[in-house]
Amino acid sequence: MAQLRIALAQVNPTTGDLDGNLSLVVDSARRAAEEGAHLVVLPEMVVTGYPVEDLALRNSFVSASIKATRALAADLAREGLGELPVVVGYLSRREGPGARYGQPAGAPQNSVAVLHRGGVVLSSAKHHLPNYGVFDEFRNFVPGDTLSVVRVRGVDVALAVCEDLWQEGGPVTAARAAGVGLLVSLNGSPYERHKDDVRLELCQRRAREVGAALAYVNMVGGQDELVFEGDSLIVDSEGELVARAPQFTETLLVADLDLPEAGPAPDGPGARVDGLRIVRHTVSADPVAPYPPRAGAVTPRPDPLSDTGEVYRALVTGLRDYTVKNGFASVLVGVSGGIDSALVATIAVDALGADRVHGVLMPSAHSSDHSVGDAEDLAGRQGFATRTIAIAPAVEAFTRAAGEAGVPLTGLAAENLQARVRGTLLMALSNEEGHLVLATGNKSEAATGYSTLYGDSVGGFAPIKDCWKTLVWELARWRNDEAVRLGQTPPVPENSISKPPSAELRPDQLDTDSLPDYVQLDAVLDAYVGTDKGEAELVFAGYDPELVRRVIRMVDRAEYKRRQSAPGTKISARNLSRDRRVPITNRWTV
Amino acid sequence: MAQLRIALAQVNPTTGDLDGNLSLVVDSARRAAEEGAHLVVLPEMVVTGYPVEDLALRNSFVSASIKATRALAADLAREGLGELPVVVGYLSRREGPGARYGQPAGAPQNSVAVLHRGGVVLSSAKHHLPNYGVFDEFRNFVPGDTLSVVRVRGVDVALAVCEDLWQEGGPVTAARAAGVGLLVSLNGSPYERHKDDVRLELCQRRAREVGAALAYVNMVGGQDELVFEGDSLIVDSEGELVARAPQFTETLLVADLDLPEAGPAPDGPGARVDGLRIVRHTVSADPVAPYPPRAGAVTPRPDPLSDTGEVYRALVTGLRDYTVKNGFASVLVGVSGGIDSALVATIAVDALGADRVHGVLMPSAHSSDHSVGDAEDLAGRQGFATRTIAIAPAVEAFTRAAGEAGVPLTGLAAENLQARVRGTLLMALSNEEGHLVLATGNKSEAATGYSTLYGDSVGGFAPIKDCWKTLVWELARWRNDEAVRLGQTPPVPENSISKPPSAELRPDQLDTDSLPDYVQLDAVLDAYVGTDKGEAELVFAGYDPELVRRVIRMVDRAEYKRRQSAPGTKISARNLSRDRRVPITNRWTV
Repeated sequence: MAQLRIALAQVNPTTGDLDGNLSLVVDSARRAAEEGAHLVVLPEMVVTGYPVEDLALRNSFVSASIKATRALAADLAREGLGELPVVVGYLSRREGPGARYGQPAGAPQNSVAVLHRGGVVLSSAKHHLPNYGVFDEFRNFVPGDTLSVVRVRGVDVALAVCEDLWQEGGPVTAARAAGVGLLVSLNGSPYERHKDDVRLELCQRRAREVGAALAYVNMVGGQDELVFEGDSLIVDSEGELVARAPQFTETLLVADLDLPEAGPAPDGPGARVDGLRIVRHTVSADPVAPYPPRAGAVTPRPDPLSDTGEVYRALVTGLRDYTVKNGFASVLVGVSGGIDSALVATIAVDALGADRVHGVLMPSAHSSDHSVGDAEDLAGRQGFATRTIAIAPAVEAFTRAAGEAGVPLTGLAAENLQARVRGTLLMALSNEEGHLVLATGNKSEAATGYSTLYGDSVGGFAPIKDCWKTLVWELARWRNDEAVRLGQTPPVPENSISKPPSAELRPDQLDTDSLPDYVQLDAVLDAYVGTDKGEAELVFAGYDPELVRRVIRMVDRAEYKRRQSAPGTKISARNLSRDRRVPITNRWTV
Repeated sequence: MAQLRIALAQVNPTTGDLDGNLSLVVDSARRAAEEGAHLVVLPEMVVTGYPVEDLALRNSFVSASIKATRALAADLAREGLGELPVVVGYLSRREGPGARYGQPAGAPQNSVAVLHRGGVVLSSAKHHLPNYGVFDEFRNFVPGDTLSVVRVRGVDVALAVCEDLWQEGGPVTAARAAGVGLLVSLNGSPYERHKDDVRLELCQRRAREVGAALAYVNMVGGQDELVFEGDSLIVDSEGELVARAPQFTETLLVADLDLPEAGPAPDGPGARVDGLRIVRHTVSADPVAPYPPRAGAVTPRPDPLSDTGEVYRALVTGLRDYTVKNGFASVLVGVSGGIDSALVATIAVDALGADRVHGVLMPSAHSSDHSVGDAEDLAGRQGFATRTIAIAPAVEAFTRAAGEAGVPLTGLAAENLQARVRGTLLMALSNEEGHLVLATGNKSEAATGYSTLYGDSVGGFAPIKDCWKTLVWELARWRNDEAVRLGQTPPVPENSISKPPSAELRPDQLDTDSLPDYVQLDAVLDAYVGTDKGEAELVFAGYDPELVRRVIRMVDRAEYKRRQSAPGTKISARNLSRDRRVPITNRWTV
């Protein structure tokens, strides 16, 4: 057996910010060296940030990534870190024969590189490309057909990228055939509720299949709509947990492993296993002299980070990184006294601090007495500043102008007008003072279209866009309980949680005038949106037929509102709305 | 040789409207029978409409399509059309073994079916799936691995779907090996400038490669952002054009062909060619008794439908079908006297008629004298009604309210406010009267972010969204010339075309205060957005380095504005904005 001290750098890169990302790698390597590590591993695509989406199709961006990765190897050597092998994810391109059918031109690849002594000594590309949900990797990448095995201090280490671990066959099979002592997996694996449990089980199973220890490193932080939770971990060849990093925090996870010493390669030169050619490089052939290992570093989950607490942390992380990575110093929230805006303001204060959160109260003729009171209570509990602007004068000016043009505004037109006046006020303050406007809409509203286009949907970021209304209440209660547990003031007024929800756009309006009860509604929405089950299947599953039909109709009709930007006839091979999919927080502009 | 009269039905289906689409097929088959056709062919996915996007992932939708296709075969027989073989595109699923890696669950397929005597007698799926630009077919479909060959009146006819023709190998190679007399290609091929020339050349080349005549049928009409131009055509085995349908018009193209009579299959039973298994079915083995053929039907392009005229027709088609398929009776346009709104109103009048177009003039303190005059001149030339609503009172109400809250609105905030007041007025009139609001922004503005979010970008449809500003002028001039040619009044006031463009949001403002000259700007934009060339490549191609750098920065920073709907942190496997991609004009809701 051979000892190996491995460092997994759970860092927060920014898509397109190549210089900043290289600094993260150098800093991580320096700290790993200080900790006496023999190998340091960073996440998938750490050089470019992840996801890059259609930036992968920009030839100059691929070249910049390759150049940056080479420069990084030289930087590490110049910093005296050249002897420490550093494994990074980056964007490269396939060399050799031209494009194959159905693959992106320029053959970009989602690759892993081993940096050593100032150079890139080994590189191979992700083999299994995910192409569902948020992933469009068949659009953006060409799959790799090699498995890298690097010998470090007498241990053979195989390198895989993210989806390579989730799919049967390919890299997992090849790693077993290659007889490696350790499989290292680089990830940009987006947060989803309960995914951490699935992840641990997967790593345990794959370690046993390969017959080797497995080190899984994931990125952390928010990038546009995605949040990465970290949760990097190491299991031994039996699947026993050796070390685990916390969620939502940048960490360097260091662990001492005792691994089989490598012998002659069992597969022979140029072997192909399950379609993959195994490529090998030796960084250092001899094992480390025996040393006293440190204790393991299995981080217990912070008590009591429940499922709800985990979601809350994800929302705080997503809001903070979206704000910071887009260069905003502060955020603006319209606070109505209702639960949605109360939760959004609370998340914002937790993410950025109260002095970077600005509240605006915009009461109307239909606002109830408690609305202003609850909003002021919220701001008082959390210490953020508010201003109050009445919307009545602008609403009246519009109503009069439309009336004079022969169009008295009634019903929905009159309701929507109030929401749009509020949206216009928020944008005016944002334009004048530079705040990022936070939209306060939840997923139940978005799904059913229960919102005003260019009204309450206005904003640069929508923190609770993926939270059903019932989860909004649950998160507010969880946050208050957490405060009580820590001996702090509960941030959300009880009245905002307990009062019946209302848009307050006409006298005595309640959400239930237009929508089913939220408990029933959210159950059907989750089944319909989450699984794409049709009407018959949902009814068969026990949901009320009338409710199912009503909900499905609302969801399918609300599609346009969710997209907002108007479609327009396409006359060229590429227009901007559909064919150019680049990250919003893209720092790379040349 | 054997004679065959073929009918290509160039129709306009609606995505999700299965009942309506079946009626189109039955009507086409009836007309084809009346014309004495022996075979009738409809476009790709005519049963479901195209594109279906993520509707393909909804199991119940796939089942509905399969059921509808079977019902269609029965309907045709009931209508006395059972003896006429009808070829349709539809959505089906792969039978047999379960999902393979990287393919959508449920194995949906983009298929072609032959309907005869009340049943589906043959079915196979598109083999080559496009996955670039507007296409995400790897996400939505599983590729087929068979080639259907149907014998009709003694002629072997191979069936292919769209991309199958554009890629080398696969169906084209298999059709040659199968020794067919005719290759039929079903298409949903979106309009792009100059694509018609490419299409004809491709068909000619493929016919010679297969050594058989080729019949290409394309759909026509608008679906969301795509427009299908028709341009169905037939070439003989030498590549000579035999018949060609007009662009942008529903047509039944009927032609008499003289084709090789089929002998015994050269490939033997169960043959595999280039990965495809050839499946055969005989509808009718014996050739038709000799009959006098009709003259060919090569439609000359309507003189002088230039490239510009073709674009104009595409824009009219796109606007008309978006309006009609979404159930709107009328449209609303803010007319400023400028060229963008003038062109949009003109397209709308050509698409829907003047009585379904409603203009709104919303002058401000900064509107020049000619603005109102040019807008009234426009409406007068075309005969659509207008109303005038001053925006000053609402702008003043906002300005006062913000000022009282301690935020005097200056600069960009004051400019954007005016645009948002206009947007709010348009939406109020739309909510009250039911019109579809047309956004008047062009592609140069969208690309550079030279527009106001929730202001001039407000609208349900953006007719000139994919037109650079220089093309906007060109289209207006073309439309005026066309009017002169036809002895009509030119619809666009000359002053709207010739005056320097201005947003008129501050005194004496001109677009050139913020943007480069449009001729230079559009050239760089087209190269950057159209090809993804980076800064160095554009400079190498001869563009001014400073201009290139400035334009690239503007385009990359405007990404958020183009998306409009705020991103929000994702916490579940599917949220609404990114993971649910369904057509906007989706009529299918169960």
